[in-house]
Formats: sequence, structure tokens, C-alpha cells
Amino acid sequence: MATVAILGAGYMGSALTFPLADNGTRVHLWGTWLDDTIIDASREREHPKLKRRLPGDVRLFYSGELAQAIGEADVIVVAVTSEGFLPVFQRFLEEAPKPFPLITVTKGFVLYGGSVVRISEAAAALFRRKFPTAKFQWISVGGPVKAVELSQLVPSATIFALNSSSVHEITDLFHTGYYRVQTTDDITGVELSSAFKNIYSIALGIHDGLYGAIKDRIFHNLKSLLFNQSVREMALIVEAAGGRGETVFDLAGIGDLYVTSSSGRNRRLGDLIGQGFTAQEAYEHMCREGEIAEGYHTLDLGVSYLEKCDGELLRKLPLLRMLHWIIIEGRNCKEGIDAFLKTYMII
Amino acid sequence: MATVAILGAGYMGSALTFPLADNGTRVHLWGTWLDDTIIDASREREHPKLKRRLPGDVRLFYSGELAQAIGEADVIVVAVTSEGFLPVFQRFLEEAPKPFPLITVTKGFVLYGGSVVRISEAAAALFRRKFPTAKFQWISVGGPVKAVELSQLVPSATIFALNSSSVHEITDLFHTGYYRVQTTDDITGVELSSAFKNIYSIALGIHDGLYGAIKDRIFHNLKSLLFNQSVREMALIVEAAGGRGETVFDLAGIGDLYVTSSSGRNRRLGDLIGQGFTAQEAYEHMCREGEIAEGYHTLDLGVSYLEKCDGELLRKLPLLRMLHWIIIEGRNCKEGIDAFLKTYMII
Repeated sequence: MATVAILGAGYMGSALTFPLADNGTRVHLWGTWLDDTIIDASREREHPKLKRRLPGDVRLFYSGELAQAIGEADVIVVAVTSEGFLPVFQRFLEEAPKPFPLITVTKGFVLYGGSVVRISEAAAALFRRKFPTAKFQWISVGGPVKAVELSQLVPSATIFALNSSSVHEITDLFHTGYYRVQTTDDITGVELSSAFKNIYSIALGIHDGLYGAIKDRIFHNLKSLLFNQSVREMALIVEAAGGRGETVFDLAGIGDLYVTSSSGRNRRLGDLIGQGFTAQEAYEHMCREGEIAEGYHTLDLGVSYLEKCDGELLRKLPLLRMLHWIIIEGRNCKEGIDAFLKTYMII
Repeated sequence: MATVAILGAGYMGSALTFPLADNGTRVHLWGTWLDDTIIDASREREHPKLKRRLPGDVRLFYSGELAQAIGEADVIVVAVTSEGFLPVFQRFLEEAPKPFPLITVTKGFVLYGGSVVRISEAAAALFRRKFPTAKFQWISVGGPVKAVELSQLVPSATIFALNSSSVHEITDLFHTGYYRVQTTDDITGVELSSAFKNIYSIALGIHDGLYGAIKDRIFHNLKSLLFNQSVREMALIVEAAGGRGETVFDLAGIGDLYVTSSSGRNRRLGDLIGQGFTAQEAYEHMCREGEIAEGYHTLDLGVSYLEKCDGELLRKLPLLRMLHWIIIEGRNCKEGIDAFLKTYMII
């Protein structure tokens, strides 16, 4: 029987305990230094974010118990935000007694060695510093899965990008009758789709805020045009970075953009911006409610990442330029949409 | 200055008068024998479906005035339902004084010569019988455009599939600052995407009816899984029929499925089925309200069409099989979704 240690007791880390436990896998859930109250609550009653008791056989660990949490593990899952990734991963490596296979559900970019890189690139570099001769075994998780629904066993489909066929059997620990695990070797495609769908979901939220909240209208033609353009730009991005367009046209791209733009935190960030808040006000307002809209920081880092890949790329991405203009440069969002449409309408 | 005659004064035929008139094109709008009251109302006041006055310079023609409507035209647009296509097109050909370039917004299949064929295939055969030596010039229109919103000048993006570069200049008559006309030569891809997105939208509606209407819940993970699977099956269908997957991953497929599954008549048909009506009850209920959910008949014809293309194809399309099972065979829809998921969850 395998043991999986999950680092991070937020939404997704905790939700993954359900399929794992249902498969009879031993699960250790470790809370970071921000999660001690979550661990407290989850021991006594329900998980405070998922509003559900975790499976009874999951072992819970406080932030000070990292060594015990990972000691007997066969596989490590990193399930923190992109901002938390480096501190948590470095702390984990300090304690790691051996080179574990690694899975992450973290989406986005990190600043590493003075440069913006994908999560897997930073992880590989750090791993090799600690275990210079060991094989780096890695899975990036993508696809349209809201954690709360997964914890309620709603049928869900995910995609695991594996860097080696040697980690394929790990996917069996997760796959259940309600959690379908598809696999691919396109790590670049899955990571970039997962990061950029958070960014593009803000655009769909801006539409909702501009027209839905104020005028009580949805402009379906405009919204579908924005959805379609988001997918198209994500495909250009992934291909420019060496991934495959087909990854975007499946669960990691289309599927995840669909769910994130229907209901996620990034959609809400856009909605608030569309209603007239500046991006910074909207982001901080949500932070005060304990909701981190990751697309906000991912946008800035993502654009830097793209400029490194291909200096000409941004020119082909008018919707991303619009988001940068509104969110990073703080310009008026109605003017931003108008400027985007002016470019878009001329083919 | 060009003259465009539009056959059919329903939603889309009438909405197209706006971009055409804004471009200074002369527009003749001919109502079929079902549209005489629409023509009456539109002359006096607003168009009864669009709830808006048509542009003042559009000339309106009753069903008995077909010859006058098309006499001076340079281009003909056929804008009727798939069920109305053959009778209207045959009637038009009887009156046609010359081999016009043709555009259609009709989506779906027709029975022609004892076989289920795409609209363009039937049109080509009929055209050649009347004009054996003339060039068949054809455009199939697809993409996410709701007619009511187009008539309100909401920014919209469409895709015109051309069978010859000689019709390219016709697209300029339509393209405006709010109606973007992208072009492709993949007629098969656009026609099949346009037909099948009506079918797959029923599946998303069934989700809404089953969980939204009854339990006041949306299962986002399940809904995005269904959306993603719809796109994937549409790509398999288009490729099996000789079209290109990239057409599905753009406006004609993803874009149109997004808008149709958010708000269209086919989504509503599915919603009613999810709430417990049989497919036939739901279809007839909507017909009594004057709303034709085209996906209902398209499903039956579409499956016949696919069996002709590739006898093994349906085996690879579990979501289409589920729809056939529920809608054509009249089986229970909860059992249908469960059976689909059972297949889907095993990769």
C-alpha cells in the first residue's frame, strides 16, 4: 500500500485526499505555516474551506511536523499557491530524506535565479541541487476540477503531465470512478494552459462586470468571442514555448478555461474590475475575504515569461495585451475592451 | 453597389440586414410562406422576433414576390431552418434567372436522393440540375452569433467557409466594425461543427435541467467535462468526414458551442429533458411557443450521416451515443448520463 504526502491543506490539497483515500492509499496531509488553523479544525470537525469532514483515515500534520509527514511517503504532492511554491518546496527539500517522485497542482510562474520560469523548471533546478545524481520524476496536474466539487465526488476529469513513463503507475493512486486521470507528456502545454486560463478568465469576468452587473445583460456573442480568442491565444503561447496546441484544445485548456471562467476567483476579479474597481482594489478586496485571485500576479510574470520565449509573440495576442493594459497599467477597462475589439475586428 | 437578397425573414436572415445595410449594400428581405405576418409587422413597426425596426432602406418582400426579390440580386442568402431548406431552395431555383453566388446560414442535414447529406451537398446537386455548366459558388456560415444580439450591434465574430476564392469579395459586404467575418475553405468542418454544436448543446442543457433546475446546483466539474468531451467528439466527427480539426477548435466549433450551450434553444430542450420531460414532449412544448430546437431532428439525421462516413465512428463518441439513447430511444436521462460516465471514466 502506497503513502502519499500532500503539502498544503488548502482547497485542492485537501480535496485530493478523497480519491486517494477511496483507492485505499495512505494519505498524509501536511498544513503549511498558514494552515495550522485548518489542521486544527479538520481534526475536530469539517475542513473549513471544503465544508466537509476529510476521510477518517487521512493523517493530519501541523507545519512543525513536516519531517514526520514525508518520512514514510512514496510520493509527494505539492498543493500550494504559486506564491507559496518556492518557500514550501525549499523547506520540503531541506527535510527530504530521499528523491521522491513529485506531483504539483500549483499553477503559474515563479521568479527563480533572476528569471521568470515555470513551476517545473524551478522545481527541477532545486531538486538537482539537493539530489545531483537522482532522477527528477515529475507530474504537473491540469484540467477542469474545482476542489470543493471533487470533495463532493462530483464526476471530474483531470490531466496529469508526466516527465517520464516511470511515474505512470502513480496515476493509478488517484484515478477513481469520479476522478478521471488522463495523461500526457506535454508538461509545457499543461503548465502554460493552467497558468494562462487563470489570466484569460479575468477577461470573461470583465465582460460580466461591465455588462452583467451594471446593465443586467450578458452579451453572448461578445463573451463567446472572448472565450474563443482566449483559447486561440493560449494555443499560440503553448506552441511558442515548445508545447502542443492539442493540449490547449483539451482538458488543460478548453476544459479548465470553461470552468474557471464560469465560476472561479479569477472570473470574480475580472467582474469587480468590470464593475469599476481598479485591478489592485479588486485584488486586495478579495484578499481581505481570504480569496487569492492568482491570475493577477500570474499575468505580470506570464508576460515576462513570454517575452523571454519570443519577443514578437505579444504582438499576436491582443487579448493578453488588453489584460496587461487594464490590470498592470491600471487603464480604464471599457477603453481596453474597445481597443481590443478595434484590433480584433480587423482580421 | 451590390444587392443581396435574403430568403427567410426569421431571426438570422433579418439580423443580417444590419451589417449589410451599414455597409451600404442594397438588401432585399424575402419572407417565406411562413413569414408573411413578419413582413407585415416589419413594414409597420418593429420586426416581431428581433423586437427592433429593420434598417429603413431594406426592401421587404412577401412570399408571393420571390421573383421580384431576387431579380436584381447579385448574391443570395438562404436563411431558413434545415427543415425549410429544400422547399425554399427548390422554389428559389425555379425562379432563379441566373446562377447566383449562394450563402447559407442554415445548419444541419437534409434527406436528399434517399440519403442524409450536408446542406451544401444537396444545394450543389440541385444547382447543377438547373445550371449544368455554371460554377457553383457557395459560402456556409458558422460561428457564435445570436441573431438578436447581432441586430443590436453587439460585437460578434463569424466564420464564412468559401468553396472558391472567387466569392471572397462577397465577405466584404458583411464585414463591419461589429461583425467580424473570418474565412476558411473548410466547408465540411464548418457545416458539421454548426450542426453538431446544436446536438451537443442538448447535453449541456440536460446537465442544467438535472442538477440546476431541480437541485439549484451547477456541477462545474461535470459541465466542463461535458463541454470538453463535446469539442473532442466534434473534432473526431469533422476529421472522419474529411474536414479539419482546427475548424472545430475555433469559432465554428468551440465558439459556437459556447454560445449555444449558454443560452440557445437546444440548451433549453436539454434543460426540459433534464427536468423530466421526454425529448418529444420537450420538443413539442417548445414548438407550441414557436421555438424550434433544431438539434432534435439534427441528431437523428446526424447519426445516419456519420454511419455513412464511418461505420465504426459512433463507437468512439460516447456522448453522442448518450444523446441518441436519451433523445431518439427515449430512455431515462439520469441513466443515460450514468452510462456515459461509466464509459468516460475508464480511459
